[in-house]
Amino acid sequence: MKAILDTRQQRHDPQNFMANGVVSRSPEQPARIDVLKAGAEAAGYAFEAPKDAGMGPIAAIHTAEYLTFLCTIHARWSRIEGAAPEVIPNIHPASRSDSYPKSAIGQAGWHQADTACPISEHTWESAYWSAQTAITGADLLVGGENNTYALCRPPGHHAFADLAGGFCFLNNSAIAAERLRNKGFRPAILDVDVHHGNGTQGIFYQRADVLTVSIHAHPARFYPFFWGHAHERGEGAGLGANLNLPLARGTGDDEWLETLEVALARIEAFGADCIVVALGLDASIHDPFQGLAVTEEGFRRIRQRLSAQSAPLLFVQEGGYLSDALGANLQAFLEG
Amino acid sequence: MKAILDTRQQRHDPQNFMANGVVSRSPEQPARIDVLKAGAEAAGYAFEAPKDAGMGPIAAIHTAEYLTFLCTIHARWSRIEGAAPEVIPNIHPASRSDSYPKSAIGQAGWHQADTACPISEHTWESAYWSAQTAITGADLLVGGENNTYALCRPPGHHAFADLAGGFCFLNNSAIAAERLRNKGFRPAILDVDVHHGNGTQGIFYQRADVLTVSIHAHPARFYPFFWGHAHERGEGAGLGANLNLPLARGTGDDEWLETLEVALARIEAFGADCIVVALGLDASIHDPFQGLAVTEEGFRRIRQRLSAQSAPLLFVQEGGYLSDALGANLQAFLEG
Repeated sequence: MKAILDTRQQRHDPQNFMANGVVSRSPEQPARIDVLKAGAEAAGYAFEAPKDAGMGPIAAIHTAEYLTFLCTIHARWSRIEGAAPEVIPNIHPASRSDSYPKSAIGQAGWHQADTACPISEHTWESAYWSAQTAITGADLLVGGENNTYALCRPPGHHAFADLAGGFCFLNNSAIAAERLRNKGFRPAILDVDVHHGNGTQGIFYQRADVLTVSIHAHPARFYPFFWGHAHERGEGAGLGANLNLPLARGTGDDEWLETLEVALARIEAFGADCIVVALGLDASIHDPFQGLAVTEEGFRRIRQRLSAQSAPLLFVQEGGYLSDALGANLQAFLEG
Repeated sequence: MKAILDTRQQRHDPQNFMANGVVSRSPEQPARIDVLKAGAEAAGYAFEAPKDAGMGPIAAIHTAEYLTFLCTIHARWSRIEGAAPEVIPNIHPASRSDSYPKSAIGQAGWHQADTACPISEHTWESAYWSAQTAITGADLLVGGENNTYALCRPPGHHAFADLAGGFCFLNNSAIAAERLRNKGFRPAILDVDVHHGNGTQGIFYQRADVLTVSIHAHPARFYPFFWGHAHERGEGAGLGANLNLPLARGTGDDEWLETLEVALARIEAFGADCIVVALGLDASIHDPFQGLAVTEEGFRRIRQRLSAQSAPLLFVQEGGYLSDALGANLQAFLEG
C-alpha cells in the first residue's frame, strides 16, 4: 500500500505554545514524522515523495491574501526591532468584516486564530509540502488506489480559508477533498481527530458538494471551543452537509464505534463515492491531550469498520502527539 | 472645577503585556493615577469620590454575559492547574456567530481581543469604580457642571459591548455618553487618544443617537489595526454617525488642530448638546507609543479650541503612559 511523505515537512519546528497563560514547547514536533513513518512501514506501507502540483490546488481552498501572508510574514516580522523569532499574534479582529491592516502585527492577528501556530523560517516550506503530500494522495485515489496514507505534517484541519490555528496552516484534508471533487468525485471528509475539524467545517460550511463529519471531544470545555457543537449544521446551500458528533471527555472504544455508525450512515445518505479520513490519532487514551480514550484495539476496529464500506479511502494525517502509543496506534489503524 | 476618582481604581496592576511575541510589564500601571491626579490638581481641579450608581448604567452598554465573565473569570481561571496568575487568552473566535463555550479558556478568548488586557484578582473592582467615576462625571454635567474631569483608570475606549482589549474592560466614555442620552441629552464622543476608540465605535456603530468621532494615528500600521480607518462610517441606522480621522505617524500640533476643526464641524452638524472627550494623552510627542507628536502647548491649544464651542464638556481619561511629560500635558490641557 502506498504512503506519501516529503522530507521538507520536517523543517518546521515550532517552539512557542501558550496555553493557560503559560508558554511551553509545542507538542507538534518534527519527531512525530519519524514515529508515524515507522508505524506506517510496520503496517506494510511503502513511502514515496509527493509530486509538485503547484499552488493551484492550494489556492482552490485558501485565499490569495492568506497565502501571501504565509509566504512573506516571517521575513517581514524579522524586520521588527526586538521581535520574537517566531510570528505570534497578540491582537485579533472581532469579525471578518473588520478592516484589513497593512502591518505585520495586525495581519498576524488577522490570520492566526491562536498562539498554537507560530510561524518560523521554514513553516511555509513544510506546510507547502504537507499539502502536496495530500494532493498526491488524492491523485492516487483518482488513479484507482484505495487506502493511501498521506503523512501530512504540519497537520491541517484547524486551518480555515484565511486563518491558521492549532498547529495547522494549510488544510490538507480540505485541499485533498477539493482535488477529488474537481476530478468528478463526490467526497465526504470524516474527521476522527480528538479535536473538532473547525477549519474544514468552516471551508465547506456553505457548500453542499462536500460533506463534512467530525467525531471529537465536546468543545464546550476542549479546544477549539467555538466550533464543533452539534447545532452547527452548515448554512445556506451547505445546511445539512455538516455533522458534528461531540463526545463526552473520556469516551472509549464502544461508544466511539457506535458514533461511527451515525457518521457512516450520513456519509451513505450523502452518496459519497470516496472518503477523506482526517486521521488524528489523539483520541488515544495515551495521548497527552487526554480528550477521549480510544485504545490500540479501538483504532484497529475503527479501520475495520471503515473498510467494510465501499467508498475508497484516503487517510490524511492530522493530530496525534508523542507518546509510547503513537506509532503502535497508527500501525493498528493501518493494519485494521 | 470638579474631578472624580476612587482609590480602588489603583488596585488593578496588570503585569503581562505581549507585543511582537515578547512579554513585558504592562505600561498601563497604577502609578499613572498619581501622576494624572497631580497634573489635574496643579490645574486647579478638586477631587471627590464617585457615587455608586450600581450595575444599571454599566449594563446599558455591556452585555450581561460579558459582565458575568468579568466578575467571575479570575476565580474560575485560578482553579486551572498550572495556570498563569493573570487571565490571558490564547484562542479567539473568528466571528460573533461562532458558538459560545463553557470553559474559562474559551470564554477568555471570546471576551479578550488581545494580550493587553490581562485580568487579575482586582481587575473587576478597579474597572467597576473607573466606570462609576465616569457615571458621576456625567451626572455632574447633567447637574450643570462644565469641564468635569473623570480620572478613569483602567481606561475604557478599546472595550466593546462584550470584549476587553488594549488595557480596557468597561467603556467609561460610552457608559457616560449613554447616561447622558438617557437623561435627555444628545451626546457626541470626541476621542483624542492616539489609538482609535474602536470599542466606542463598535458600541454605537448601528446607532444614530450618539455621534462618535476619533482623531488618532492611522491604524494600518498602529494599534488597534482592524478599526479606525476612514471608510468605517457606521452601519444601518448609524451610517454617517461615526467619523474616523486617522493621521499619519508623527503628525504634530498644527495638523492635529486643523483636523479638530473637521471633528467639531461634524459635532455641530449632529446638533450635539454635550461632548464626552475621551481624553488620551498618548498623542504626546513624549509618549512611549510614539504615534503622534502633540506638544504640551498643543494640548493647551486643543483645550482652548474645545472651550470656544458652546456644548458642555466631560473629560474622561483614556490612555497616556508614564513619561516626564504626562502630568504636564494633562495640566496644560485642563488649564487651556
